[in-house]
Amino acid sequence: MDAHMDVFSRMESNVRSYCRHFPALFASAQGPWLTAVDGRRYLDLLSAAGSLNYGHNDPPIMDRVLNYLGAGGMVQSLDLHTAAKAEFLETFGEKILAPRRLSYKVQFTGPTGTNAVEAALKLARKVTRRPGIAAFTGGFHGMSLGALAATCNPAARAGAGVPLGHVTFLPYQGYLGPTVDSLDYIEGVLSREGSGFPRPAAVLIELVQGEGGLSAVTADWIRRLARFCKEQEILLIVDDIQAGCGRTGQFFSFEQLGIVPDIVLLSKSLSGFGAPFSIVLMDPKLDVWQPGEHNGTFRGNNLAFVGATAAIATYWSDATFSRGIQGRADLVRERLWKIANGLPPGAAQVKGRGLLVGLEFKEPSLAESISRLLFDRGVIIETCGSHQQVLKLLPPLNIGTQDLQFALDAIADAVSEVAGPRLALAS
Amino acid sequence: MDAHMDVFSRMESNVRSYCRHFPALFASAQGPWLTAVDGRRYLDLLSAAGSLNYGHNDPPIMDRVLNYLGAGGMVQSLDLHTAAKAEFLETFGEKILAPRRLSYKVQFTGPTGTNAVEAALKLARKVTRRPGIAAFTGGFHGMSLGALAATCNPAARAGAGVPLGHVTFLPYQGYLGPTVDSLDYIEGVLSREGSGFPRPAAVLIELVQGEGGLSAVTADWIRRLARFCKEQEILLIVDDIQAGCGRTGQFFSFEQLGIVPDIVLLSKSLSGFGAPFSIVLMDPKLDVWQPGEHNGTFRGNNLAFVGATAAIATYWSDATFSRGIQGRADLVRERLWKIANGLPPGAAQVKGRGLLVGLEFKEPSLAESISRLLFDRGVIIETCGSHQQVLKLLPPLNIGTQDLQFALDAIADAVSEVAGPRLALAS
Amino acid sequence: MDAHMDVFSRMESNVRSYCRHFPALFASAQGPWLTAVDGRRYLDLLSAAGSLNYGHNDPPIMDRVLNYLGAGGMVQSLDLHTAAKAEFLETFGEKILAPRRLSYKVQFTGPTGTNAVEAALKLARKVTRRPGIAAFTGGFHGMSLGALAATCNPAARAGAGVPLGHVTFLPYQGYLGPTVDSLDYIEGVLSREGSGFPRPAAVLIELVQGEGGLSAVTADWIRRLARFCKEQEILLIVDDIQAGCGRTGQFFSFEQLGIVPDIVLLSKSLSGFGAPFSIVLMDPKLDVWQPGEHNGTFRGNNLAFVGATAAIATYWSDATFSRGIQGRADLVRERLWKIANGLPPGAAQVKGRGLLVGLEFKEPSLAESISRLLFDRGVIIETCGSHQQVLKLLPPLNIGTQDLQFALDAIADAVSEVAGPRLALAS
Amino acid sequence: MDAHMDVFSRMESNVRSYCRHFPALFASAQGPWLTAVDGRRYLDLLSAAGSLNYGHNDPPIMDRVLNYLGAGGMVQSLDLHTAAKAEFLETFGEKILAPRRLSYKVQFTGPTGTNAVEAALKLARKVTRRPGIAAFTGGFHGMSLGALAATCNPAARAGAGVPLGHVTFLPYQGYLGPTVDSLDYIEGVLSREGSGFPRPAAVLIELVQGEGGLSAVTADWIRRLARFCKEQEILLIVDDIQAGCGRTGQFFSFEQLGIVPDIVLLSKSLSGFGAPFSIVLMDPKLDVWQPGEHNGTFRGNNLAFVGATAAIATYWSDATFSRGIQGRADLVRERLWKIANGLPPGAAQVKGRGLLVGLEFKEPSLAESISRLLFDRGVIIETCGSHQQVLKLLPPLNIGTQDLQFALDAIADAVSEVAGPRLALAS
Repeated sequence: MDAHMDVFSRMESNVRSYCRHFPALFASAQGPWLTAVDGRRYLDLLSAAGSLNYGHNDPPIMDRVLNYLGAGGMVQSLDLHTAAKAEFLETFGEKILAPRRLSYKVQFTGPTGTNAVEAALKLARKVTRRPGIAAFTGGFHGMSLGALAATCNPAARAGAGVPLGHVTFLPYQGYLGPTVDSLDYIEGVLSREGSGFPRPAAVLIELVQGEGGLSAVTADWIRRLARFCKEQEILLIVDDIQAGCGRTGQFFSFEQLGIVPDIVLLSKSLSGFGAPFSIVLMDPKLDVWQPGEHNGTFRGNNLAFVGATAAIATYWSDATFSRGIQGRADLVRERLWKIANGLPPGAAQVKGRGLLVGLEFKEPSLAESISRLLFDRGVIIETCGSHQQVLKLLPPLNIGTQDLQFALDAIADAVSEVAGPRLALAS
Repeated sequence: MDAHMDVFSRMESNVRSYCRHFPALFASAQGPWLTAVDGRRYLDLLSAAGSLNYGHNDPPIMDRVLNYLGAGGMVQSLDLHTAAKAEFLETFGEKILAPRRLSYKVQFTGPTGTNAVEAALKLARKVTRRPGIAAFTGGFHGMSLGALAATCNPAARAGAGVPLGHVTFLPYQGYLGPTVDSLDYIEGVLSREGSGFPRPAAVLIELVQGEGGLSAVTADWIRRLARFCKEQEILLIVDDIQAGCGRTGQFFSFEQLGIVPDIVLLSKSLSGFGAPFSIVLMDPKLDVWQPGEHNGTFRGNNLAFVGATAAIATYWSDATFSRGIQGRADLVRERLWKIANGLPPGAAQVKGRGLLVGLEFKEPSLAESISRLLFDRGVIIETCGSHQQVLKLLPPLNIGTQDLQFALDAIADAVSEVAGPRLALAS
Repeated sequence: MDAHMDVFSRMESNVRSYCRHFPALFASAQGPWLTAVDGRRYLDLLSAAGSLNYGHNDPPIMDRVLNYLGAGGMVQSLDLHTAAKAEFLETFGEKILAPRRLSYKVQFTGPTGTNAVEAALKLARKVTRRPGIAAFTGGFHGMSLGALAATCNPAARAGAGVPLGHVTFLPYQGYLGPTVDSLDYIEGVLSREGSGFPRPAAVLIELVQGEGGLSAVTADWIRRLARFCKEQEILLIVDDIQAGCGRTGQFFSFEQLGIVPDIVLLSKSLSGFGAPFSIVLMDPKLDVWQPGEHNGTFRGNNLAFVGATAAIATYWSDATFSRGIQGRADLVRERLWKIANGLPPGAAQVKGRGLLVGLEFKEPSLAESISRLLFDRGVIIETCGSHQQVLKLLPPLNIGTQDLQFALDAIADAVSEVAGPRLALAS
Repeated sequence: MDAHMDVFSRMESNVRSYCRHFPALFASAQGPWLTAVDGRRYLDLLSAAGSLNYGHNDPPIMDRVLNYLGAGGMVQSLDLHTAAKAEFLETFGEKILAPRRLSYKVQFTGPTGTNAVEAALKLARKVTRRPGIAAFTGGFHGMSLGALAATCNPAARAGAGVPLGHVTFLPYQGYLGPTVDSLDYIEGVLSREGSGFPRPAAVLIELVQGEGGLSAVTADWIRRLARFCKEQEILLIVDDIQAGCGRTGQFFSFEQLGIVPDIVLLSKSLSGFGAPFSIVLMDPKLDVWQPGEHNGTFRGNNLAFVGATAAIATYWSDATFSRGIQGRADLVRERLWKIANGLPPGAAQVKGRGLLVGLEFKEPSLAESISRLLFDRGVIIETCGSHQQVLKLLPPLNIGTQDLQFALDAIADAVSEVAGPRLALAS
């Protein structure tokens, strides 16, 4: 370990984690490629946990950011009015909301996903005067106490050090097995007085569970849930922090499913270049906030506003980009099916939607082994799921076909090399 | 209202607040000066709530940031190792920690102050296996549920929508009036079994209360508290988010007071140019985190690392900058005393320490009126305290003497014009 | 209203409730008969909410109590050793536990059912070091905060005035409709890490829900639940406060079902003459209490010990009494079926088990109207269920055949008079 | 150990505690005298933890109870109207409330002190719509979760197994030492917004702390607290469960102090012969209960009503009894002072008020040793306080002079024998 690396073990807290799986010292990055200080290059299928949907340092976005800085643009502005923020709001309204006939108001929260979750839960509780939130098995919403209370992961919850309350967990679609529709249960307990489940303020859901193993809802299921929420005057909050910003093929993950959430959370790729940025979108009639009732110093990150405006202008002015994502998604899915079909029946299955996809292995340790082998070969790809049993692909949405093929070939080889012998032995 | 301003009322949530007090549309900024789109200039004594201690777009810092971006440096990296992060850690260790004989380990949390608070409270609870935290009357630590539980402000707490627990509030120095030492009470209830105050994991304190009205502890008081905490094996956490990074004259607010906290929280001005960035500093023996036990997508904001490295290298390599802050602080304090002395006895008093100072008015509404008049005259200055009764100065620490004099003159005039007639009438 | 009645509205809190439904002024009582001060007699099918299973002032029991008092026996003894307590323990061990091959230890709690529940939940949490308890939809366990947290009734819960936590509700058998086995759900969420339902300390259940509408579990269902609890090391607590002491035909409600709970709660009819008395029975290996860790002034009610000893000696020395209950239960059930069958299909159904039975009406208000009419005719019978839709029979277990026939005739007449016209109109 | 004793260790839970200190097997009792099965007699200065203020089996009370039973009086009646209850209410109104110009309404709760506390806290929260309760260091209010949350004792709290919330503890008079008036602190934190102590629904206090070491408030202090509560619209609840029913010389412990609480809790000696019985007295305008909103099976214990009526008629029809208590209290206090003065300065001090008095030893273990020696000599006397450092006298209020002298002589001898040598050695 050279001098540079040594500083991390010496000075950085043990809490660091990704660097343990991918122990290079990175310097620069372009598109899907990372370059380490030793000159080695890595193909990045992690995209900073989905916060770089347009790849690293995407030129149309970075040009705008650099121009803004060069012109002495205001960088940090709390929630003062700035030209950069006005332009973001106008662009977001025109290119994202209007074409989808959405009329949300925008809250700029502290620039982390968990802070957007905290704000949304506060708002839902304020609007409905009900304290409870219903969240889902497998869901992940963040690490501050309010969001953590809605996150299932037992190790994360144990880290709270205090009991987490006011959230009830509901079984996600498929959680109770293929023969039971978990909505039968959900409707049964949430709609009847005296069930011990007081009517919650809101249902908080990811339409594809990014950390929870890439489980995804179907249109029928989520529509029935949305209808039920409407009837019961329960707010529907879609956490689109990982699945939004184009990740599933459209800007929002709910577009293809025929629902309109009351509240939507965006973060991660919103700024277009990985700058911290989070917003809460809310039905205007829910905007009952008092001024300053939820705040945070960094809610006025103008570089993020500029980047987000550039990203939207570049990629979301028409349907071209969306079609491109779908094309890549089809390619990936097909190939993953092929890989899975090359294994013994039941050994692996394809999970997810759009470019938030992966391979779930029956034998959980396989995913981690494959990820490790791929890193040695210059491909960065993480695992997810309650037992890290899912190999998870988060390529840039604008990744070139050649790079994508390279990645898929590498995955196919690694799966075959790692899983082949182990599964053969087992059978 | 022109087209640009209209977008905020149309599209932004009612939660926005600073923009209501300072309703200009800002475009660019340099040092202590803001320029609105209409060309008007404003002297900024708010410094983005203390997150721009070196002023806006400080050249030595921005040059490094622009160079980094120009060279294709990696922007967002989760908690992967990057060259920019290594350089930050080394610089922080060499220039900040080593000269002060501190040996903290560094945790990169989600890049908001509230997230650093959440992480620190989790850690303290984990280390001690005690759920309780003791915080102080007048304290402000953030808006996510874990941090909010330690924040006194009743309106902020009401916004939680759920009960906030596991925090006990203790009276800050002076809270019980001039004749009672609140430490008598604190030691009385925290040290005895059966007092109903189970021993907390940690005491969380701001040494100057930035939102709470600029109350500040004395060296004697905080030393006695620190000694008591050590005896009782209670961790001492200093929230230096607003008072740190030079604001009180030294890099940390505790340096002059002769204590060494177990845990220190930094954020706001840490990046040097207003980029979201937060860290938790901890005594190495407290670093019991499991990998990934607290995480967050934006904990790897390399632009912030680069800015912070530049800020430290530029300003904290020797004692020059610190002496400059002290000089400005003396100037400000002297002038504020003079202004207060120009009013009837008891009408106003100077609060705070270093360049975190202000004027507290007996008649609370004066502060707000003075702030409003100053904005009309091109000076941005906020109020704080439980009744917004304190006019609060947060100038850049490197503000030029002329600009500072201009600001103080403007304040003196405004106080005289607003307070003079009203207090005359009242007497 | 005569002078005597006036004192209640003048001096007693509005919280009183049974007296509003049965507004007589009672003086004396014998067996199933109450006598009011005006000389009017009432047949009592309420039995003080199941706390007088042997009827009022049962001679073999009262003789013993009077003898004890006459001999200057110690009445109140905290948890000191007394001869009366020793005799109770020996009799309970010999006549109740030994023949059933049970080897529970006995905890004398505060003499209320809710206090026994509080003690049992504390113990389960202490043994397992887990805070959570799983209770059931429709369950009722008491009104102090710990027991109330496990009680479903929304009005009762609202009365807490604070949030009730650390209890998760599970769907009781049949709650999700006839086609869904709620155990599929229960096993699904309780057995998997990351479901958001951390493994509870215990499952708390009534085998017949006395307040919740007389729903009852089947042997298959409760056996599967008991097996699951054993596998998962979750304690099974049977709240036999209302269903125990012979109410379902055997001394314990679980005897016929083939399970052995880890903890059993008894109260209500335990003393044999309505004196306050409650105990917790526990598997000896669970007896991890520290001396005095749960206490209460009235845990040494010797009159209750004497009464309980007499009741057990009188009624539970052989199987005669049990057979008698079963005979009466058959008679009642047959007649209730006949009554239900006399109404339009689906209008009413028989609920419950043993002599804890009733008629559930599809149209909820019928039950209350019938109860009112019966009171006018000198029969006291209450309603239960989430909408008070169930007419609930709790006759003394030793009620004479003639009295029982009288009661059933009266019920049949009242149902026919009240329900007949209303249902005819509706159809 | 004979057969009788063996049954306790074999069958009774380890939670039993008094019997470990006073390991006799008691059979009968009369006045202050207990008789064990072996014929040995004990002088009882424990009075079943203050629940036998008129001694065991007091003839005027027991005669009435036996007559009632002999006449077939209804024993258990839920909250139905009974003649016995009407008579109790009338007698209580006439003899207790009216002469003291009190006009409380009466709630019959579950017949335990802890249940009365639970009911009172619910009511206070309901009336004020505030969740918080302020209780005091050293306070003891019961073992069910709602009452336990207001109880200081750390071991008792640990037994909860879940976090206890919604109660803040305030320093009792004297808790912060002789120079600090804890009311300065209390008023400081409870009256100001933003102190982190939201205004509580109620202040819950014992005027003499029965379990907490016999600390007692002065008239000045409690009057100031009462005045403060009134100003702040905080309800004042006096827990008179141990200190009421004549224990301090008047029927209520607050009579001599010049305050009128909003809510008063009575239990323990209320029935006059140790039968379980508890009531909540409330200002009529606070009686906002819905029917049945707090309930419990044994709230209609008619034997207790009859006993209570007899006790009041016998002892509280004029001031004779009260004067007698005062005479005995003077005698006891004088003698205890003499005993304390016989020890080295500071070794012991007299605590308490009326016949709720004791000797607090600087060396805590002395109290327990003295208690043990006294038991060997046939005197039953317990200890209390956070370290069991107080020898606590709870003689019957009608104890004969000769018996009292016998007890005091025995105490004096035991103190001298146990404390003398140990303190001599220590000095």
